[in-house]
Amino acid sequence: MSTGFAHEFRVRYGECDPQGIVFNANYVAYFDHAMTELWREAFGSYAVMEERGIDMVVAALNVEFHGSARFDDLVTLSVAIERLGNTAMTTRLQLRRADELLVEGHLRHVIVSRESWEKTRIPGWLREGLEPYLVAGPS
Amino acid sequence: MSTGFAHEFRVRYGECDPQGIVFNANYVAYFDHAMTELWREAFGSYAVMEERGIDMVVAALNVEFHGSARFDDLVTLSVAIERLGNTAMTTRLQLRRADELLVEGHLRHVIVSRESWEKTRIPGWLREGLEPYLVAGPS
Amino acid sequence: MSTGFAHEFRVRYGECDPQGIVFNANYVAYFDHAMTELWREAFGSYAVMEERGIDMVVAALNVEFHGSARFDDLVTLSVAIERLGNTAMTTRLQLRRADELLVEGHLRHVIVSRESWEKTRIPGWLREGLEPYLVAGPS
Amino acid sequence: MSTGFAHEFRVRYGECDPQGIVFNANYVAYFDHAMTELWREAFGSYAVMEERGIDMVVAALNVEFHGSARFDDLVTLSVAIERLGNTAMTTRLQLRRADELLVEGHLRHVIVSRESWEKTRIPGWLREGLEPYLVAGPS
Repeated sequence: MSTGFAHEFRVRYGECDPQGIVFNANYVAYFDHAMTELWREAFGSYAVMEERGIDMVVAALNVEFHGSARFDDLVTLSVAIERLGNTAMTTRLQLRRADELLVEGHLRHVIVSRESWEKTRIPGWLREGLEPYLVAGPS
Repeated sequence: MSTGFAHEFRVRYGECDPQGIVFNANYVAYFDHAMTELWREAFGSYAVMEERGIDMVVAALNVEFHGSARFDDLVTLSVAIERLGNTAMTTRLQLRRADELLVEGHLRHVIVSRESWEKTRIPGWLREGLEPYLVAGPS
Repeated sequence: MSTGFAHEFRVRYGECDPQGIVFNANYVAYFDHAMTELWREAFGSYAVMEERGIDMVVAALNVEFHGSARFDDLVTLSVAIERLGNTAMTTRLQLRRADELLVEGHLRHVIVSRESWEKTRIPGWLREGLEPYLVAGPS
Repeated sequence: MSTGFAHEFRVRYGECDPQGIVFNANYVAYFDHAMTELWREAFGSYAVMEERGIDMVVAALNVEFHGSARFDDLVTLSVAIERLGNTAMTTRLQLRRADELLVEGHLRHVIVSRESWEKTRIPGWLREGLEPYLVAGPS
């Protein structure tokens, strides 16, 4: 069972657009930022993975917008791993303001060797570190 | 048959990340920028739509990454409308460097009244202006 | 004597450029972000000022670069008010990684009425709230 | 006498903030973008300089705000070189909408060797390429 991971932060002024809400692209930047924070909790830092010769690239993403975050909102971005395959993984990201779900997205990452930049099997230490965040994905 | 729409531009240095390629979130910003340019060709400007009491909000998006654009690359972002519904539309965006397809994405926009910010029927003038860009969507 | 104000945060991946360091423009975005956090400490939030009919616009800024912040660096941005005039104020911002001064900047803000967007006298409550952060400026 | 250099572009939606105007930091990003375009005119591309073992880093910048650019504005950013020293140069950047000067800034770049990243003398070919853009600086 997942213990979950959540990163709390404030919406910055320059991330908002003339409608007064976070500009669409910046939610994707938030997703990336939350992955960095998950890596910190799971492995110490993102650099630890790089030093072990592994990196990851985004192969696909999707986002559904249910509401909007505004300047200075205190929001929480929770990350759960829905699928941990041989060479790829899928994460679900949910942005909430208090209990309100504003934005939900998914990222599919492919794990690559930093030597060849070709896809490579997820190493055991990476799999073990991520398993606490694994949840049942959509059926 | 669609006459198509394409917007050509250069990748800026600050849009690229330490891997030397465009940061993921910035492709979504490019999508938004291309929509503005499509509106300019179809209606004169985005402001023309706003002045007529109509606006649109992104309800969902997805992106598939096949390759990466790099600093100073000359790229072309083509936009085609795959679906023009009663209150929503779906567009397909394809980013190419020469003939190479780098990134493909879809945006689903909902048309809203600027008075109520509730969804509203796509007005005739908007539908007519967009029909030249309508293509057959995925079966 | 000033009690000082400092805001600590992590450098995000998408804020860095192909040189692996924070893109120049993003330091200015950090400055803006630190001002929001100073306002939170001094007044509760930036919105409190807006609700009282006052806003502020940047009239000038300068930045000196002594070093560079990198991805995932834990940095501290300290803010001190160097001058609190009749209708304008000057702040000094210093970004440090541990004890190392990386970037130093100054912002000159003009206080404006939210009704007219014309410059206006700094109200007493604003002056009182900011005085704890006032330091002796450059001679 | 300077032939001048100017780069024309449109303000993008995501570059604007809740006040409806370009977010302060993004003017600095525009400056960087205009330098790339000046390099294209003078040398073919920024990459040409890098291939010759030379790079440049921003040592200082300042910006004065006289007005604001808004979404979809067609603006012109002109660049003039005010000082071409032994190892550093100072450029003046002026952003205009039609004849109205909105923002004026200065960048001080130091020329560095890409091998050592230490400052190095401006090579002859770089000096010659930039001389057409040299203007009399402020007295």
